[in-house]
Amino acid sequence: MNPRLFTFVGGKTGGWSVVSTTAVVGENLHAVDRVEIVNGSVDVLYEGGVWVLRGVTSNARYITRDEKESLVRKQAALGRPSANQSALIPIRKNAAWSDLTQDERRAIFEEQSRHVAVGLKYLPAIARRLHHCRDLGDAKPFDFLTLFDYANSDEPAFDEMLGIMRGSEEWKYVDREVDIRMIRVD
Amino acid sequence: MNPRLFTFVGGKTGGWSVVSTTAVVGENLHAVDRVEIVNGSVDVLYEGGVWVLRGVTSNARYITRDEKESLVRKQAALGRPSANQSALIPIRKNAAWSDLTQDERRAIFEEQSRHVAVGLKYLPAIARRLHHCRDLGDAKPFDFLTLFDYANSDEPAFDEMLGIMRGSEEWKYVDREVDIRMIRVD
Repeated sequence: MNPRLFTFVGGKTGGWSVVSTTAVVGENLHAVDRVEIVNGSVDVLYEGGVWVLRGVTSNARYITRDEKESLVRKQAALGRPSANQSALIPIRKNAAWSDLTQDERRAIFEEQSRHVAVGLKYLPAIARRLHHCRDLGDAKPFDFLTLFDYANSDEPAFDEMLGIMRGSEEWKYVDREVDIRMIRVD
Repeated sequence: MNPRLFTFVGGKTGGWSVVSTTAVVGENLHAVDRVEIVNGSVDVLYEGGVWVLRGVTSNARYITRDEKESLVRKQAALGRPSANQSALIPIRKNAAWSDLTQDERRAIFEEQSRHVAVGLKYLPAIARRLHHCRDLGDAKPFDFLTLFDYANSDEPAFDEMLGIMRGSEEWKYVDREVDIRMIRVD
């Protein structure tokens, strides 16, 4: 098993209680009561499981050494006791994005959309882990799954950050996005 | 199933007859008589199967639009009738490579190692398909599988190209490499 693999199971059990499931672009996911997050693979659906999403953490594809050092200096890991809210945001990008080369993606990602620069402003309040789905062996409905967590009081800042991202040049290539908000129950 | 997934089965059956299996760096693979190449997943080992390697084709991680256009203009697809020889070269890169950021990888890949510039000189004689393994859900023994094919008369050019690549700065990060040479039997 790839130690960087994470599985998200939506259903009736799990450590996160779902508050809302919103289709931002494209088709929604079936609304569920709970989400369980597992490091590793889950072979069978949890009892009451409705959907399963999988992704692997990997190297950051578009950032420089300087940007990485700025992020590492400021960012927090998921799972702080104060972070009792989370958001799971699965995204798919369109074929036009797939056709772009590395230099073109980088230019859209940072020089035009300021993805890192914007994200940095919300650290360490918002913690984030990105999972890649596109190069898994099974076809997947999304390209990326991003999991965020934060304290109740930081939700307005989180929403502000999402608003800026969703208005960026990079987001013009997003053709499916679901926003699942959750609160911790265990 | 991911349509970009390819499976390589080493054993007693398959369309390619193995001429040699050489450990270039690190541990060798078990020598086999034949290799079968399947677009998709193979659930059980072929009769007499000894090893299975899997990888997915994906976007090129380190090339610019100009380089991509030069490659596309010159390159041939695998499977030409004249290409009765092939090489499957599984590679793993070390942790120092994993720790590099995008800009650092690009500088080593092209500005220092001339990976694209060198490869271009051998097109269209040498055809190539790169498969990624690192972000599959199961842990894999290699990070990349590259499959090449070419006519008998182009084998010296292929060996020359490999010699240049293996002497490059990029190859200092390779900690396992196996070179499997094959001829077509069907």
